[in-house]
Amino acid sequence: MKLDTFFNPKSVAVLGVSRNPNKVGHVIFRNIVDAKWKGMLYPVNPNAEIVLNFSCFKSVLEIRQPVDLAVIAVPANFVLKAVDECGRKGIKHVVMITSGFQEVGNLALQNKLLALLKKYNIAVVGPNCLGVFDAYSKIDTLFLPRYRLSRPHPGGISFVCQSGAVGSAILDLATTEHYGFSKFISYGNALNVDEADYIEYLGKDPATRVICLYVEGVKDGPKFLRVCKEVSRAKPIIALKAGVSAAGAKATMSHTGALAGAAEIYDGVFKQANIIRAHSLEEMFNYARALEKGILPKGPNVAVITNGGGYGILSTDAVIMNGLQMAAFSPDAEKAIAAVLPPIVKVHNPLDLAGDATTERYRVALEAVLADKNVDMLLVIVLYQTPLITTDIVDIIIELNDLKKKPICVVSTGGEFTEVLKKSLEQNGVPCYTFPEQAVGALRQLYTYNAKNHRR
Amino acid sequence: MKLDTFFNPKSVAVLGVSRNPNKVGHVIFRNIVDAKWKGMLYPVNPNAEIVLNFSCFKSVLEIRQPVDLAVIAVPANFVLKAVDECGRKGIKHVVMITSGFQEVGNLALQNKLLALLKKYNIAVVGPNCLGVFDAYSKIDTLFLPRYRLSRPHPGGISFVCQSGAVGSAILDLATTEHYGFSKFISYGNALNVDEADYIEYLGKDPATRVICLYVEGVKDGPKFLRVCKEVSRAKPIIALKAGVSAAGAKATMSHTGALAGAAEIYDGVFKQANIIRAHSLEEMFNYARALEKGILPKGPNVAVITNGGGYGILSTDAVIMNGLQMAAFSPDAEKAIAAVLPPIVKVHNPLDLAGDATTERYRVALEAVLADKNVDMLLVIVLYQTPLITTDIVDIIIELNDLKKKPICVVSTGGEFTEVLKKSLEQNGVPCYTFPEQAVGALRQLYTYNAKNHRR
Repeated sequence: MKLDTFFNPKSVAVLGVSRNPNKVGHVIFRNIVDAKWKGMLYPVNPNAEIVLNFSCFKSVLEIRQPVDLAVIAVPANFVLKAVDECGRKGIKHVVMITSGFQEVGNLALQNKLLALLKKYNIAVVGPNCLGVFDAYSKIDTLFLPRYRLSRPHPGGISFVCQSGAVGSAILDLATTEHYGFSKFISYGNALNVDEADYIEYLGKDPATRVICLYVEGVKDGPKFLRVCKEVSRAKPIIALKAGVSAAGAKATMSHTGALAGAAEIYDGVFKQANIIRAHSLEEMFNYARALEKGILPKGPNVAVITNGGGYGILSTDAVIMNGLQMAAFSPDAEKAIAAVLPPIVKVHNPLDLAGDATTERYRVALEAVLADKNVDMLLVIVLYQTPLITTDIVDIIIELNDLKKKPICVVSTGGEFTEVLKKSLEQNGVPCYTFPEQAVGALRQLYTYNAKNHRR
Repeated sequence: MKLDTFFNPKSVAVLGVSRNPNKVGHVIFRNIVDAKWKGMLYPVNPNAEIVLNFSCFKSVLEIRQPVDLAVIAVPANFVLKAVDECGRKGIKHVVMITSGFQEVGNLALQNKLLALLKKYNIAVVGPNCLGVFDAYSKIDTLFLPRYRLSRPHPGGISFVCQSGAVGSAILDLATTEHYGFSKFISYGNALNVDEADYIEYLGKDPATRVICLYVEGVKDGPKFLRVCKEVSRAKPIIALKAGVSAAGAKATMSHTGALAGAAEIYDGVFKQANIIRAHSLEEMFNYARALEKGILPKGPNVAVITNGGGYGILSTDAVIMNGLQMAAFSPDAEKAIAAVLPPIVKVHNPLDLAGDATTERYRVALEAVLADKNVDMLLVIVLYQTPLITTDIVDIIIELNDLKKKPICVVSTGGEFTEVLKKSLEQNGVPCYTFPEQAVGALRQLYTYNAKNHRR
């Protein structure tokens, strides 16, 4: 099973391309055209002649060139015929958007489909899913219009997601917040490719630096454990298990039909597999953005640099509550910092550069703590409300972050002016947060991931 | 001590109005002018003739009309002279922006100032603070330019804040996120008016519906307890105590000089005073926006309505983990909802209106659960990525929320399209959140605040 074809096909046929712009097949086809994906694209519809200036094929069997991937968006009652034709055409990879199988109680149809896939040795994403999105290759089977669901720019986060709605909401958020993505997979009923297979594939995908997983129930527990144990040595896996309460578990039954299983079992499996557990989608992507950067701290010592005293205190509380430590600055660092501060200010950690802090004051402080062997990671608070913070502080932080010496997380709270600068940092590889507790939570994950991997 | 004069003065003198647009006194004066505050405004500067087309006075003693409030932004060594002149002029209210007192070790100057204020019976906000902002009267002593620190629109949240940086960052965020504010007070060294006095005043302020407090250390414990106990009967108080860890407490010493005191003592005082404890600024304003609306639930039963199954499960988990309950819908509600759902869908809570949910389907479901006596509060998830959700869903939710029958919190995750609709809801009185856990946390506070107040 070569899963890479799902993300990097050379040729794609879309089955069920409608001329009606509101139909799923039309939206998928249009999205692939608009995304400027590079490859041969074949619309298939027995009843249409031309769609979006593409000449339609009545069947995949009519296409004379080889086809790597078929995206199937026909109604459920046409699925078996479509798959049979794909099989005869020699297509080995199908993304099946179509729903109407086990999730609505139609197990008979699902079993027939499964047998047919086996006969032709076809690997399927889905059915009953959004399919795949690759920010690099631009392959995109998400049947939601781009003005509703924007697509994130290329980066190192990959997201394996059992819920289509969760996935699309997060992709949309990620675009606005400038999180970089590699691959997204909404895998629906996971007929013959399951979450463990995707994780195994992403483990070897060079563009993926961190793997996120939203799961209601895993298909095959032992396989999942085995794969994750292996993959988590190479890159972090963050998982959010939905349905941990009894009432939530009951709700998963009617959603994806997943047998949620006891929360304690998942807890144990996650621990054994060295999976980082997120308790919310917010936590998951707060962690992922820090882990994506691949810069890990040598120890638990945090330097907090701020231009607002209150934020320094809140950050210190968060550092302690997360089991990390406040670094004790070395004499060299203290001396360098003292030189740019008013004489009455005492240098300590949290380092309050004060309300009249300039960009230059930040630069000196950042360089000093980056060079200080007592400091393992940096929490930098930049409140842009004061006019002496010039906007080039963004360039300075990016430049120092690019040295990849120590992890740097930035916290900024504010309105539109702040958001512009925050997103500029995020887009350039510096994870940014609105509140100190979010950033410190991410720093904790960097520390524990590194500590666990060194122990093994 | 009539604190209302700080927020609703008829006449204001600004002492230390510079012609230099980068100076604090200039920015304050310009901000008051720009805000279109209605009242008599007098710039005072012995060395300037005209500032921003206003004729300057050499001293407050030169002003012939009475002056309600003096805003003092002169350097520390001119403060005593300025206050003395204010006293002789009969001014009883001063906002003192100037710093350089106890916070930098100059206790002698602070004591002289205190004695002078006592002599003339002057109440002071500050010194060493940002002062006040009133979204209704538009009085505004914040010395930060509006393009850096935007000002929120009128609403029911008031914020008493020991840290100027925390306050300005939150005001700026609140503006972009469309939170409604009443009054903001950055009180700095709290020389003769402390946080308890402000809370007592806000307790009687009709525009304030919820009081938020960021505090490093309270000035007078017994007074604070007595006042908050009383005020919290009338309206909720939410407090964030900074410096709860030993390292954080040490940091408060060098920030505001506050004796932070043991976290356990604060915990006890907050409990006795029925203060809602927030553990981060994020939590504080998530709670405040729900409590501001003044609609309290009769019981712990939550109805979850969603167009994404995964979000329904995550919400259910959050409801249970927050000690709330999933409502069991009444037969009437079930019947009404079933009528607009496909026959195969079973009506239960969480109510998954499915990916093809229309706005009309939402309307029917919302009306049914609002009428259902088994439901105490609503968590409505609206994911705007699917095209069948038309934008008029915003109007429908606002209309139903305006009936004030039951608390409604809305969750939407997404990009720019989502944010526009989310902010429209927020601005029209519906608290909106990005993630289910945030909304459920707020619902829990609504429930416990109501339950505690009924018990007394």
